[in-house]
Formats: sequence, structure tokens, C-alpha cells
Amino acid sequence: MSHLDTMLERIQPTCADSRAAALSRLDQLTKPRGSLGRLEELAVELAAITAQPLPRVDPPAVVVFAADHGVAAEGVSAYPQEVSAQMVANFAAGGAAINVLARQIGAHLEVVDVGVATSCKGIDGVVIDRVRDGTGNIAVEDAMSDEEVQAALAVGMRAVERARRRGCRSLILGEMGIANTSSSSALLAAWTGLRPQQVVGRGTGIDDQRLAHKCHVIERALARADVDADPLRVMAQLGGLEITAMTGACLAAAAARLPVVMDGFIATVAALAATRLCPTVKDYLIAGHRSDEAGHGHALAALDVEPLLSLGLRLGEGSGAALAFPLLHSACAVLAEMATFADAGVADEPS
Amino acid sequence: MSHLDTMLERIQPTCADSRAAALSRLDQLTKPRGSLGRLEELAVELAAITAQPLPRVDPPAVVVFAADHGVAAEGVSAYPQEVSAQMVANFAAGGAAINVLARQIGAHLEVVDVGVATSCKGIDGVVIDRVRDGTGNIAVEDAMSDEEVQAALAVGMRAVERARRRGCRSLILGEMGIANTSSSSALLAAWTGLRPQQVVGRGTGIDDQRLAHKCHVIERALARADVDADPLRVMAQLGGLEITAMTGACLAAAAARLPVVMDGFIATVAALAATRLCPTVKDYLIAGHRSDEAGHGHALAALDVEPLLSLGLRLGEGSGAALAFPLLHSACAVLAEMATFADAGVADEPS
Repeated sequence: MSHLDTMLERIQPTCADSRAAALSRLDQLTKPRGSLGRLEELAVELAAITAQPLPRVDPPAVVVFAADHGVAAEGVSAYPQEVSAQMVANFAAGGAAINVLARQIGAHLEVVDVGVATSCKGIDGVVIDRVRDGTGNIAVEDAMSDEEVQAALAVGMRAVERARRRGCRSLILGEMGIANTSSSSALLAAWTGLRPQQVVGRGTGIDDQRLAHKCHVIERALARADVDADPLRVMAQLGGLEITAMTGACLAAAAARLPVVMDGFIATVAALAATRLCPTVKDYLIAGHRSDEAGHGHALAALDVEPLLSLGLRLGEGSGAALAFPLLHSACAVLAEMATFADAGVADEPS
Repeated sequence: MSHLDTMLERIQPTCADSRAAALSRLDQLTKPRGSLGRLEELAVELAAITAQPLPRVDPPAVVVFAADHGVAAEGVSAYPQEVSAQMVANFAAGGAAINVLARQIGAHLEVVDVGVATSCKGIDGVVIDRVRDGTGNIAVEDAMSDEEVQAALAVGMRAVERARRRGCRSLILGEMGIANTSSSSALLAAWTGLRPQQVVGRGTGIDDQRLAHKCHVIERALARADVDADPLRVMAQLGGLEITAMTGACLAAAAARLPVVMDGFIATVAALAATRLCPTVKDYLIAGHRSDEAGHGHALAALDVEPLLSLGLRLGEGSGAALAFPLLHSACAVLAEMATFADAGVADEPS
């Protein structure tokens, strides 16, 4: 039995009793019923996920998976491939956006090299858990072998295990990898039947000409892939090492009853892959934000989730999920700390 | 010269130099240009408001103004008027939603009784700064005299002065007052020319029948008011004590270069009133969220602002603004703490 099969067996439905307890308590708190809108729904979801009537999400762990993509050779990104490794060094030094945002929410941040083209070995503070030196160029060859997909899933599972051992109660998954919106677009098109034109976006900010070229590259990748194959085979053909690691992390988080805050397009496609392997995983996912990347709306729709924030972000790294995290924290605090009508001597709404 | 005139004279345009410095720095930070979307705009706005290239918004002050409304006698709310005073006691005891959310953001919370029907004197921890025992019933009489409007504005100005003396660097304005969505709807209709049907909502959660009745009550108020009078006279005819105090607080905050995070419908109408007295105030306002109350979208449109959050809230108390606050904090942190391309040795985007 593979690591994956063991993990899939451990994923249970979220807890109906804790959900009901949280719902009932919310209606006794000193506010008109439902007047905290989405925050109340979030409190109830977190109760169900954690199987705790008064859930806790603190401290969160941020894990950023970094890897390179052979398809970068097709000129689909505004940045050269070297930037992946340079940004890993920036994460390790504490200077990237996700470092700042992780500090804001008191999160432990871990950076995992799953397969940056040039190994990040020697960069202090980076977890080296490499599967291969970047993926194959999906326009002309498979991204990974089936064994490499399994290995990348296991990288994500190990990261969740480390976060759990540190006592983290929620998970934010981020990524870094030049050209990874191309791979994500290909996966999303394969799984939804949408055309490349609908799911390909500007990534870090490419112009119209390069956008048209990027679409053409994704068309070539889709033309050579068997998009009806099982999810793992599709991931081998079109995916990415960091995307697959995030998929593994989603599965492990669901198995451990840890809420996962999804970041942008790439993280959401990775989560979608996890739900293709096990539909129950969906109930453990919180959509952090709606990004500016064209395909993200389609990925969110494919998961049938509504994001908490919509701020026109398009950075990745887990940045949007980290920005959404204080809402989870507040939802838990409202549930645990507000007075009831009875305690406070406030007249309840006449029913 | 009145307090108000002195205050209006002190309000200056936001700082173009700090805005330019923040914009320039954002483009040097290790992320694709503009990839943090609205967060970058927020950092720039805060630089301009505070006249600091690296703005700080911590610690924030939350001030909740409480007062009653004579129009409650018309049966426009789901709750009896007694709830205003009961909720003030709940704020003082720390059990309301805004208490929990203020703690989350490390804010000092002050509750000011501007004119609850039964005085809150004797409730520990409430600032007593009363103008009168609730307003007149706007369906049949003016809410306040012109002198009472001036007095309520001064209540808000004093609250900002106290927050400043405590070292607060930003302001969240909240309110409590049964029937205050009726007063806010009347003000918004008067200033925008919208029909009551467009600006009247369900408040704390009234049914269809009471909603139709509430519309009719607002129609009566508008029919007896001179909606083309100067803003202060319109506020005297249709406004509320806590709404007017929030207007005064917006003016004082702008004069002191403190960013104001607007909460929901009532707080936004109060801020709209402030911009009617001094259009420059608009540049000191940050729209915290879009609430579920029908009129709020129109009030935001009248101010031409886009809110940070949209979570279906309809509580008031400053709750939505408090939930949005971590975004201000993160915007400042990104600007101050991220590494530049040059510092981090990361290749910038080819321009």
C-alpha cells in the first residue's frame, strides 16, 4: 500500500456534532442572528474541520514549496528561471512578502526545495527535499514520471507532519516557481474542459504578445496529454513538483483535521487535484482570496468555494492566504469569547 | 468662530510627497510590480494620510458612540429601545463582538454615551458625554436643534483628542443605537436623491411587513424635512446623536492626519456627512467593508470608495472596520519590511 493510499484512508468527513454545537452557540451570542455573516459561517466550518465546538487555529504554519518548470524554456514568463532560486534565498533571508505577512500572523514559515533547477542546498534555513532538478517541458514531454508524482506528494505530507509536530493548528500553502501558472493552467484546462484562452493569465505580468504565446504553449501541452487519464497521470503529464507537493500537503492536512487556507491560482489548482483524489478534502479547505490571475475564478468555481478576500493580488507565495488568516482567528475568538444574551442581560430578538 | 469652523480650517490635503515616496519604494520591493494589488494602494494611501513615507497605524483606537432615536417609537426595529443601554453595558463588560475584535487588533476601545434614552451614568468604563436623552422622532419632529448638532460634533472631536493623547495612530468608529439605520437611510436619501425604497434595509433583521412600514416612516420624515438645506440643518432634521458624533470624529481625525476605517452603513453615512462639510475629508477615509444593509452600497458609491472586505456583515459597532484593520497593518509592514531587488540580489523584471 503506497503512502498515498494510507493517507487517503485516514481522511474522514468533518465533524457534524461540533458544527451543530458552534451553530447553536452563535445564535445565543449578543448580536442579531447571522449578523456577522461570512465570519459566522467560517466559525462553523472551523468547528467542523477541527472537530472542536470552540476551534483554535493558532499558531498557523506557512509552507512555501519551491520548484522549477521545464516549460520556462518556452519563454512563458516575464522572469528568468534563475529567479526561483534567488527568491528561495530571499525567503530564507526574511525579505519577501510572505516573510512579512507570516510575521504579522505569528506563523512559522518553512521553505521547501522540491526541485529548483539549481539545488538550494547551502541556503541556510531551506528544507531540502528534492525530487528532481525541475520538471520536464510539458510542451514536449511529461513533467514527471508516476514515481516522481508519488515522491512529490510525500514531500508535502512530510511538511505537514513537521508543522503538526511544531504544534501548528492550521496550514497556509504557498509556492514559488517561475512558469508555474503555465502548469496550473494546463491542469485546470485538463480537469474542467475549459479552453486555454479561458484559464491562461498574465502570471507575474506578461504583455499581450507573450500571453498569446503562453496560450499556444498550453495548447501544445494539452494536445500531447491524455487529459482523461486518472488524476495522478494528468499531474505527471502536466503538473509541477511544488504543485504536487501542495496536493500532498492538502491530503495530509485533511487527514490530520487541520484547516488549509488556500492562496491563489496555483495553490487552488493543487487543492483541486487533492479533491480529485479524495472529494472529502474539499471540506477542509478555506478559500483565502480571489486573485487577479484569469484562471483563479475558474479554479474556485470548480471547487465551488467563495473566497474571503478579493484584493487584486497576483503574487503567490501564500501571501493572500496569510492576509486572510486574521479572519479565521477572529471567527474563533468571536465564538469563544462573546457573551450570550442570558449572560449579558440583553433582550434577545423576539422570534 | 465655532469649534467646527476651527476644525475645518485645520484639515489639509493629504501629503503628495509621502505618497510618491511610498509608490517609488513599492516598485523596488522583491515582487512583480503591483502584484499585491489593493494592499499596495492601501500602503500608498496611508503614507499620504499620515504624511509618512513609511506609515504606521498601530495602535488603533475603536470608539463606539451610543445614542437613542425617537423614531424607534414608530416600530422600525426588531429590538426594543432598551437594548441600546443593555448593549452599552455589554460593551463595558467586554462581551460584545466589538470587544472581541478590538482585542484581536490590540485596539483601545472606548464607549461614549452621546444620548442613550436612559443615561448610562453608573456603568463603569463608559464615557458620559451626553447631548440629550435620545433624538426627536424624525417622522414628526426634528431630531435635534442646531445647537445640539454642534454639541454632538464636539463629542466626536473630544473622543479623537483622547485617542490621540493615548498615542493611537488610526481610528475605527462604531455605533450602537436602536433604529439608527432609519436615521441613516433618511440622511442618505436626502443627500443622494435616492428613494427610500432604495436606501432602506432590514437593519438588525426585520421582516417584509416591517420593512414596508420602515420605508413609509422614512417617507414621512423626508416629506417634512428641507432636504436642500445646508448639511448641518439636514443632520438636525434627520440625523442622530451618535451619527453626528462620528461625523465630528471624522473631521477631527482628518485634521490630525489619522486614517479612519469606516465600518458599515451608519458609519459610512456619518463619514459622508463629514465630506459634505469638507470634501478633503474623503482622502482620510478607508472603507473597511461592504455590509449586507441595502443602503450601504449606495453610501459607498456616494463617497466613490471601494471597501476592503465584503463578508455579508450587518452588525455595526465598528465590527467590520476592526476585521479590516489587519490589512492596514500588513500594508504598512510590507512597505517597511520587504527587501528591495538590489538588497536581495533578485533579478528585477525586464522593463
